[in-house]
Amino acid sequence: MKVENIKQLLEDVKNNKIQIEEALSTLKELPYQDLGFAKVDHHRELRQGYPEVIYCEGKTVEHIVDIVGVMVDRGSNVLGTRATKEMYDAVKKKHPIAIYNELARTITLVQQEIKLQATHIAVITGGTSDIPVAEEAAITAEILGNKVERVYDVGVAGIHRLFSKLDIIREAQVVVAVAGMEGALGSVIGGLVDKPVIAVPTSVGYGANFGGLAALLSMLNSCASGTAVVNIDNGFGAGYMASMINKL
Amino acid sequence: MKVENIKQLLEDVKNNKIQIEEALSTLKELPYQDLGFAKVDHHRELRQGYPEVIYCEGKTVEHIVDIVGVMVDRGSNVLGTRATKEMYDAVKKKHPIAIYNELARTITLVQQEIKLQATHIAVITGGTSDIPVAEEAAITAEILGNKVERVYDVGVAGIHRLFSKLDIIREAQVVVAVAGMEGALGSVIGGLVDKPVIAVPTSVGYGANFGGLAALLSMLNSCASGTAVVNIDNGFGAGYMASMINKL
Amino acid sequence: MKVENIKQLLEDVKNNKIQIEEALSTLKELPYQDLGFAKVDHHRELRQGYPEVIYCEGKTVEHIVDIVGVMVDRGSNVLGTRATKEMYDAVKKKHPIAIYNELARTITLVQQEIKLQATHIAVITGGTSDIPVAEEAAITAEILGNKVERVYDVGVAGIHRLFSKLDIIREAQVVVAVAGMEGALGSVIGGLVDKPVIAVPTSVGYGANFGGLAALLSMLNSCASGTAVVNIDNGFGAGYMASMINKL
Amino acid sequence: MKVENIKQLLEDVKNNKIQIEEALSTLKELPYQDLGFAKVDHHRELRQGYPEVIYCEGKTVEHIVDIVGVMVDRGSNVLGTRATKEMYDAVKKKHPIAIYNELARTITLVQQEIKLQATHIAVITGGTSDIPVAEEAAITAEILGNKVERVYDVGVAGIHRLFSKLDIIREAQVVVAVAGMEGALGSVIGGLVDKPVIAVPTSVGYGANFGGLAALLSMLNSCASGTAVVNIDNGFGAGYMASMINKL
Amino acid sequence: MKVENIKQLLEDVKNNKIQIEEALSTLKELPYQDLGFAKVDHHRELRQGYPEVIYCEGKTVEHIVDIVGVMVDRGSNVLGTRATKEMYDAVKKKHPIAIYNELARTITLVQQEIKLQATHIAVITGGTSDIPVAEEAAITAEILGNKVERVYDVGVAGIHRLFSKLDIIREAQVVVAVAGMEGALGSVIGGLVDKPVIAVPTSVGYGANFGGLAALLSMLNSCASGTAVVNIDNGFGAGYMASMINKL
Amino acid sequence: MKVENIKQLLEDVKNNKIQIEEALSTLKELPYQDLGFAKVDHHRELRQGYPEVIYCEGKTVEHIVDIVGVMVDRGSNVLGTRATKEMYDAVKKKHPIAIYNELARTITLVQQEIKLQATHIAVITGGTSDIPVAEEAAITAEILGNKVERVYDVGVAGIHRLFSKLDIIREAQVVVAVAGMEGALGSVIGGLVDKPVIAVPTSVGYGANFGGLAALLSMLNSCASGTAVVNIDNGFGAGYMASMINKL
Amino acid sequence: MKVENIKQLLEDVKNNKIQIEEALSTLKELPYQDLGFAKVDHHRELRQGYPEVIYCEGKTVEHIVDIVGVMVDRGSNVLGTRATKEMYDAVKKKHPIAIYNELARTITLVQQEIKLQATHIAVITGGTSDIPVAEEAAITAEILGNKVERVYDVGVAGIHRLFSKLDIIREAQVVVAVAGMEGALGSVIGGLVDKPVIAVPTSVGYGANFGGLAALLSMLNSCASGTAVVNIDNGFGAGYMASMINKL
Amino acid sequence: MKVENIKQLLEDVKNNKIQIEEALSTLKELPYQDLGFAKVDHHRELRQGYPEVIYCEGKTVEHIVDIVGVMVDRGSNVLGTRATKEMYDAVKKKHPIAIYNELARTITLVQQEIKLQATHIAVITGGTSDIPVAEEAAITAEILGNKVERVYDVGVAGIHRLFSKLDIIREAQVVVAVAGMEGALGSVIGGLVDKPVIAVPTSVGYGANFGGLAALLSMLNSCASGTAVVNIDNGFGAGYMASMINKL
Repeated sequence: MKVENIKQLLEDVKNNKIQIEEALSTLKELPYQDLGFAKVDHHRELRQGYPEVIYCEGKTVEHIVDIVGVMVDRGSNVLGTRATKEMYDAVKKKHPIAIYNELARTITLVQQEIKLQATHIAVITGGTSDIPVAEEAAITAEILGNKVERVYDVGVAGIHRLFSKLDIIREAQVVVAVAGMEGALGSVIGGLVDKPVIAVPTSVGYGANFGGLAALLSMLNSCASGTAVVNIDNGFGAGYMASMINKL
Repeated sequence: MKVENIKQLLEDVKNNKIQIEEALSTLKELPYQDLGFAKVDHHRELRQGYPEVIYCEGKTVEHIVDIVGVMVDRGSNVLGTRATKEMYDAVKKKHPIAIYNELARTITLVQQEIKLQATHIAVITGGTSDIPVAEEAAITAEILGNKVERVYDVGVAGIHRLFSKLDIIREAQVVVAVAGMEGALGSVIGGLVDKPVIAVPTSVGYGANFGGLAALLSMLNSCASGTAVVNIDNGFGAGYMASMINKL
Repeated sequence: MKVENIKQLLEDVKNNKIQIEEALSTLKELPYQDLGFAKVDHHRELRQGYPEVIYCEGKTVEHIVDIVGVMVDRGSNVLGTRATKEMYDAVKKKHPIAIYNELARTITLVQQEIKLQATHIAVITGGTSDIPVAEEAAITAEILGNKVERVYDVGVAGIHRLFSKLDIIREAQVVVAVAGMEGALGSVIGGLVDKPVIAVPTSVGYGANFGGLAALLSMLNSCASGTAVVNIDNGFGAGYMASMINKL
Repeated sequence: MKVENIKQLLEDVKNNKIQIEEALSTLKELPYQDLGFAKVDHHRELRQGYPEVIYCEGKTVEHIVDIVGVMVDRGSNVLGTRATKEMYDAVKKKHPIAIYNELARTITLVQQEIKLQATHIAVITGGTSDIPVAEEAAITAEILGNKVERVYDVGVAGIHRLFSKLDIIREAQVVVAVAGMEGALGSVIGGLVDKPVIAVPTSVGYGANFGGLAALLSMLNSCASGTAVVNIDNGFGAGYMASMINKL
Repeated sequence: MKVENIKQLLEDVKNNKIQIEEALSTLKELPYQDLGFAKVDHHRELRQGYPEVIYCEGKTVEHIVDIVGVMVDRGSNVLGTRATKEMYDAVKKKHPIAIYNELARTITLVQQEIKLQATHIAVITGGTSDIPVAEEAAITAEILGNKVERVYDVGVAGIHRLFSKLDIIREAQVVVAVAGMEGALGSVIGGLVDKPVIAVPTSVGYGANFGGLAALLSMLNSCASGTAVVNIDNGFGAGYMASMINKL
Repeated sequence: MKVENIKQLLEDVKNNKIQIEEALSTLKELPYQDLGFAKVDHHRELRQGYPEVIYCEGKTVEHIVDIVGVMVDRGSNVLGTRATKEMYDAVKKKHPIAIYNELARTITLVQQEIKLQATHIAVITGGTSDIPVAEEAAITAEILGNKVERVYDVGVAGIHRLFSKLDIIREAQVVVAVAGMEGALGSVIGGLVDKPVIAVPTSVGYGANFGGLAALLSMLNSCASGTAVVNIDNGFGAGYMASMINKL
Repeated sequence: MKVENIKQLLEDVKNNKIQIEEALSTLKELPYQDLGFAKVDHHRELRQGYPEVIYCEGKTVEHIVDIVGVMVDRGSNVLGTRATKEMYDAVKKKHPIAIYNELARTITLVQQEIKLQATHIAVITGGTSDIPVAEEAAITAEILGNKVERVYDVGVAGIHRLFSKLDIIREAQVVVAVAGMEGALGSVIGGLVDKPVIAVPTSVGYGANFGGLAALLSMLNSCASGTAVVNIDNGFGAGYMASMINKL
Repeated sequence: MKVENIKQLLEDVKNNKIQIEEALSTLKELPYQDLGFAKVDHHRELRQGYPEVIYCEGKTVEHIVDIVGVMVDRGSNVLGTRATKEMYDAVKKKHPIAIYNELARTITLVQQEIKLQATHIAVITGGTSDIPVAEEAAITAEILGNKVERVYDVGVAGIHRLFSKLDIIREAQVVVAVAGMEGALGSVIGGLVDKPVIAVPTSVGYGANFGGLAALLSMLNSCASGTAVVNIDNGFGAGYMASMINKL
C-alpha cells in the first residue's frame, strides 16, 4: 500500500465516500496473504523492489507448494533456496516450468521476462568446493535481473590464477567473493579491486574451521577496506545484496 | 505432604497415637513413587500446582510407558514432550485416549477435565519453521488450563504483518515470542506490548546461527524491557512459565 | 498517542475541523522528544505503562543531565541505572531530591507518589557478592510500585539457609533469583516454589565462570520448570519483568 | 603504476630507449614509499580510488607523525582512525590544519577540496552509546566525498521513533545501521528499506553481549535481505563501504 | 619393573653375572607388549595398581580382539568401555565369559576373583537419561573392587527425592554425582555431604546445553567445596577416580 | 543440628516438655547466624567437617571484618581466600594473630591447635608462575590439618626435573597438580602415580590460552586415569578436596 | 614460468622476435590449466617444488577423475587426500596403478620414481585411534620423497612406552607428533628432542574435547619450545611441512 | 648427562670404582639447579642444543635476577622474554652488559660469541602494529645464531608491497610470517614460497578479532601447504622453531 493510497483514503473520508470505521479497517488490512502457517508478503515487492524469496529448509513440502502457488497466482517470479529434490518434484508437478539447480539447491520459476542490468556482478570462489554457495549467489542475482560473471577456483594458495582473471573481476560493478578454509580471498580481492566486495564465508574446511567460523572471522577482520560480510554459506544473501548494489 | 499433615503428625505423637519411630519413618517417607530407574514426583502437584511432565528424549520406550502408567493410576493428566512416534504407539496401546501431536512431538492424555483460565496467552513466531517449538509451548499451556492465541509467521523482515496482528497480541496476558535466525522478534514485541514477554530462541537458521546461539544472545541482550528468555527450542518451558504467570 | 486520539483525528478530518495535510503531519509527529543525540520516548508510558529508564553506561554526563531534565519537566519519576557517582553529582546539582544507591549504582528521583501493589516480589541471592545486582532489581521494582522482600546469601552450598527462608519466598507473587558461580540457586528455587522465577546470572566467580557464562548456561538449562532468564548482571531487567508480572 | 605505463615501458625497451636491466628494475619498483617500519601505499589511490587510511591504534606517535608527513607531502587528504588525543597533538604541531573529533577519535586533514556526491548516505544508531562508532562511519564517508544524514537513537525498543524518521532514511542511497545490545536494528531496517544496508555491530551492552558478539551474530543472521555486516565497532569500514557503493 | 629389580641388576653387573651391554638392553626393555598398532601397558598394573582399560571407540574390531587376547593371556581382568555390540560379539566368540552391558556399553571379562573393599561408593544421577553414564562409572568401580550404591533420578527439580536418600549417600566413602541439564546436583550434593564428590557432567539436555558444556561449567564453578570434575560423559574416569579414593 | 537433637525434640513433645508450636519453631531455626548481608553457616562444621571459608573477592572490607569477627567469636580457625592487603590490614587491626600470605592472597587466623594427619599431600607446579595458586592450595590443606610437600617448577618441558622428584610425589596420599600453559603436567603425573590427582588449571599463559581454558580442557581430556579437575586458578578448591581425601 | 623465461621474453621483444601484444599476452597466460570448475596449478611444481595435491572432500567424483587425468597427462605423481573408496574406484578404472590406503583415505599414483632423502621423519601417535591421521602424514611425506619411521601408541599415560622409543625418534630430522585427547604428547616430545616438532591435534576424544579443540589449544600453548602446530586432523599438512623441512 | 656418562658409570660400578648406592644417587641427580621456587634446566643445552630461555611474565623481579645470575655463572648467553623495564633495570644493576629491547620486551645478555649460520631467516609482518611480536622472533633467532632479514608492513591489503620483496623472502631458508587482523599473510606467503613458513598470529585488531583468535584460526586453516602455526603473539616460539629448522 503506497503513500498515495493513504492520501486517497483520507480524502475519501473527508468527502464522506467511506465511513470512518471502514477507513480504520482498511488501514489495518495490510497487503499480505494469510495462509495460517505463513503470511506471504506481497507488499514486499513494493517496499523492497523484489518479491519474497522462499527459504525452504525446515518447511514441509506441502507448505512450500502452497506458498509457491500463491506467488504464481499473483504472477511473480519465484525463487526457492535450500530446496531438496523432493520439494522440487512436488512443485514441478503443479508448475512444470519450474527449474531445479542441484548444486545450488534452488527452485526457480520464471513467469515474467527478466530485464537485465547493463553492468554485471562477478562471483568468484577460492576452491571448487565453494561452488554450491557461489551458484546460489549467482542464480539469485540472475533472477533479480543481473548478469553474472563466474570465476571459480582462484584461491590464494595459487595466487597467479587469481591475477590472470583480475581484468574480468575488475570490470564488475560488485564482487561476490566466496571462500572457506581461511577465507583470505576476501582480503586479497578487497585489496585489489576498487568495487564493493561482498564476502561469503563457507563451511568448507575441517578441524579448527569450526563450520565456517574461521573464514567468517577472517573476513570480518579483513585488513582491506570496501568489504562487508554475510552469513556463512549465505549465497542467497550475497547475491541479493550484490543485486541491490548493482541496480542503484 | 502438606503442613497440616505434619502438624497432625506432631499432635499424634503428643497424644501417643503413634510411636516416635513411626513418626520419624513417616517424616522420611516422601510422596514420590520409586520405580528404581525413576522417582515419579507426585508431590510436585501440591508443591508447584502442576503434575510432573515427562521429558521423553533419552528415555527408553519401556521407561516412558511405566511412568505414564504410574501417573494414569493416580488420575493425573499426562504431558510427554520430545516424544517419538514409537514412544506414542507404545503408550497408546495401553491408554487409547492418548493423543500425539507430530509437529510438537507431544503426547497428551487428558483424564480430568481442564478448567480454562479467563485470560489468554499469545504464542507468536517469526517464521513458519519456528512453528514446532511454538506448538510445544501452546500445547503445554493448554493442558495446564490456558486459552492460547496462535499468531505465526510475523517476523520483523516484513514488520507490517506483525503490526496487523498487534491487537490480538496486546489483548493477551502474557506473550510467548518464538524466533530463530537473529531473534529480533523478541525485542520488537517487547517494545510494543505492556505485558510480560517470554522469548524462546529456536535453532532455526544456519551458518553463524550456531544452533540457536545467535537468537539466544540476541534475546538476552534485548534493548526492550519486560522480556525474559528460556532455553533454545524450549517451547515447553515457555508454555509452562506463561501458564504460571497467566494464572497468578 | 492513544487509539481515541486517532479516532478523534479522523473525525476532525471528516468534519473539516482540520486539513488533510495537518492530519498527515500529526500522524507523523510521534510523542517523543528529540534532543538530537537522544530521542526521549514519552510515549512509552502509554505503551508500556512505565516511563523510559536511563541506561547511563556509555553516555556522557551532559547527556544524562539533559535527559533527566526533560523527564523531570514532564513530571515523571526517574530511574537511572549503571550510573557513576560523577553522573549522580551532576544530576543532584540540578535536582536535589535525586538519590544515589552506591551498591546498585542507581539514581532515583521520585516526584509522583508511588502507589504500592498489594502483593510483593522476593529478591534472593546466592552470595553476598551478588547483592549489587539484586539491589538494582529491588530498587527498579520499588520505583515501579512493588513491595520487595530481600533474602540474601542463601546459596545452595548451605541449603538449610535457603530452607529456613522458604516461607517468605513462597509468599511472594514472583521471585527474582540472583546468583553467580554455578547459578544452581535458580533450579533449586524453581523446584521449590509455585510462582514464576526470574533468574539473574551474575558475573560473580572466576576461572571457567567466563564472566557469568557458567551461571547463564546453568540457568537456561534449569531442570526446574517455571523459570526464565535475563542477561548476566541485568538486575534492572529482572526487576522490571517481575514488576510487570506482579501487576497483572 | 597504470597499465599504460607498463605498455610504454615495453615500447621503450623495444625502441632501445631503456636497457633491459633498467626495465626489470622499474618493474620491481612499486609505487609505495618505504619508511622501514611502514610502507605507505601511494598506489592505493590509483588501485582503489582513495588514499590509504591510517589505523592509529598500536602505532607509536612518531610513526603516525611520519606517515602523515609522507602523505601530506604527496598532497593527499589524510584520515587517521582510532587516534588518541596525544597522537593528534603531535600531528597538529606539524600540520595545524589537522582536526580531531574526540567522539569518533579521528584525525582529518583536508588539503584538497572534497567534491560531494549528489546522493547521500544515512547513518543511524540504535542508542546514544553507539554514536562514537556512527561518527567514525560518518566522518569517513564525508572525507571520501559523501553527504551524510545522521539519525541517532532510533532503536527498536521504541520503534515509533524509527518510523518517524523512515522518510529520511529511505531517501538515502545506502544505509549504515549501527547498533549494540541485540542489534535488531539491522533486521528491522533491512525489512523496511529497499537500499543496501551496511550493519555495524557495536560492543555496547553488557553480560551475554560478549563485547559485541551478540549484535554481530544477530546481524549476520538477519532474516531481512539486503544487509551485509562489518566488524564490531568498525565504523570506518562501514563508512568506506557505503562510500564505495554510493559512488558507483 | 620395580626398584628392587633395578638394584638386583646393578648388583649383577657388579658381580659380573651379566654383561654391561645386556644390562643396558634390559634397562631399555620396558614391560609393555608391542602389537605394532598398540603397545599394551602391562607395567601399568605395577605402576598404578590396575591393569590398562580399553577405550574401544575409534578402534577397529580386530584391534580390540587382539588387545583383549593379550590381556587375557596375562591373566588380567578386562574392562572395555564405549564398546559397540559388534565389538562385544567378536570378543565373546573367543572369550565366552565376556559380558556386555548395553546401557553402559562396557565389555567386562573377569578371570580373577575381585576382592571387595569394605567401604562403598555412591553413584547418583539427576535424571533417568543420565543412567548410561552412571552405569559406566558403577561398572568401572565394581570391576576395580568396590561396592556401589546406585541412587538414580534424584535431581534438584524435586529436591525432596534427594533428601529422602541422603542417608544412603552420606554413608558412602566417595560420591559420584552424574547430571546433565544445568548440573546443579553437583553443588547441592557437595553442600550436603562431607565426603569427596566426583562430579560428572553429561551431555543430556538440549539447546544452550551445548553438548554438556552447561553442566560442565556449572560443576567447575560449584559454590560447594569438596568437589572435583571429570570430562563430559566420562563415567569411566569418575568410577576410576572414586575407586582410587575409596581404596586409600 | 544432629539427628539425636531431633529425636530428643520429638521425645520432649511427647512428654509435654515443650509445646508443638515451639517444636515447630525450633525445627525451623537453623544453625546459622544472620548478619543481614550474609548468613554465616556455623552448621557447616557439623555437616562437612570444616568451618566455612571466606571467599573475599567482591566483598567489602567491612563485611569481611564482620564475618571474621563472628567466626572468631565462635572459636573457629579462619581462612580467607582472594584477600587483598587492605582487607588483611583491617582484619589484623582487630585480630593481631591474623597472618597474610601475599603470594597466595590468604588470611589465616589460627585459634585452635591444628592436629596433623599422618599422611601428606603433594602440591606440585609446572612453572614458577603457577606458585600463587599452588600456595593457596597448600595453605588451605595445612589449615585443614594436612602436611603438605611442595614440589615446584617441574613442568614437562624439562621432564627430568619431574622424574627426579617422583619419589616424594609418589609417597603422598593425594597429589595436587597445578599447571597453566597446556596443562600437560596433569596427564603426565596421572600416568606416573597410583594416587588420586587433583588437577588445577591456571590462567598462566597467553594468546590461545584464553585465560586458562587451554589448560582446563587439557586436564579434562587427560588420557591418564585417576585425575579430576577443579576450576581455573582454584587452589582453594583443590586443597580442600585433597584434604577431604587425605582424611578418609 | 621462471625468471629466465621472462628475461628471454624481454630480449625477444627488444630483438623484435615477438610483438608487444604477444608478449603482453604471454605474460598474462599463466601456467595453470582451466577445467572451468577447477584451475589445476601446474606452476606450483616450479614455485613450491611439489605438484598440487588434490583435497578430495567436497568434490564430485567426476571432478576428481578429471583433475587426476590432467595431472597424469603431465606425468606428475598424484596424491589425493580425504578420498572415499568410491572416488578411488572411479580413478582406478582409468589409472589401474592407483593405490588406495583405507586407513589414511589417500589415493596415490606414482609414475615417476621417487628419490628418497637420506634423513628421515618420525611420525608418532599418542594412541591407536590417532593412526589414520598419522598415516595421512606418513604417506604424504613418502610420496614427497622422505623415509618415515612410524612410532604408534606411545602416549603420555604410559610414558615409559615413549621413552623406550626415544632413540628412534631422536634420530629423525623432523618429528610429527599426532595426538588427540589432551594432546600432551606434543609438549613432552618437544621437551625431549632437539629437532623441530610438527604437532597435529586430532579430533579423537569426547566431551570437552570439542572436536579436537582441547588438543589444539594444548599444543599451541606448549611449554616446550621448537614446536609448531597444524590444523586438527591435518595429517597431510604435517607431512608436507615435515618434508619441506627434511629437504632443506 | 650424556649416554657415555651412563655407560662409564656402569663400568665404574662393575670395576668397583664406585658403590652401588653412589651410582643410584648419581643416576637420580639430574643436571638442573634447584633454586626452590625454580629448577634451572642446565641439561637443556645438551638435550635441545640451546640454553633455557626465561619467560619473565608472572615472575617476580627477584626470581628473574636469581635465575639470570645462575645462568651467567654457568657462562650461558641469556634471553629473557616478556620482560618489563623494571625487570631489566634490576638485571642490569648486576650485569651491566645486559641489553633491553623496548619494542620486543626482551633482555639479552651475550657472554659467548654467537656463531652465525650461513643461511638466513626472513621475518615479515602484515602491518606496523605487528612489529613487537616480529622483533621478539628476530631477536630470539639472532641470539640462537641466525641471520635475520626483516621485511615489515607488507600485508595483503596492498599486495604489491609484498611482491616487491618476494626475492628477499624467497632467499631465506625459513620464513616467519607475523600478522594480526585476518592473518591472510600466512596463506599468501605459503602459496608463494617453497620454504617452510612459521605463521604467528598476533592479537592486533579489534572487534571480532577476539584477541587474535581470528588470525589464529585463519592461519590454522590456511589453504596453502608448508605452513605451521605457533601461539598468538608467540614471537619467541616462532624464532626458536625457525632457528631449529635453519640449523638442520
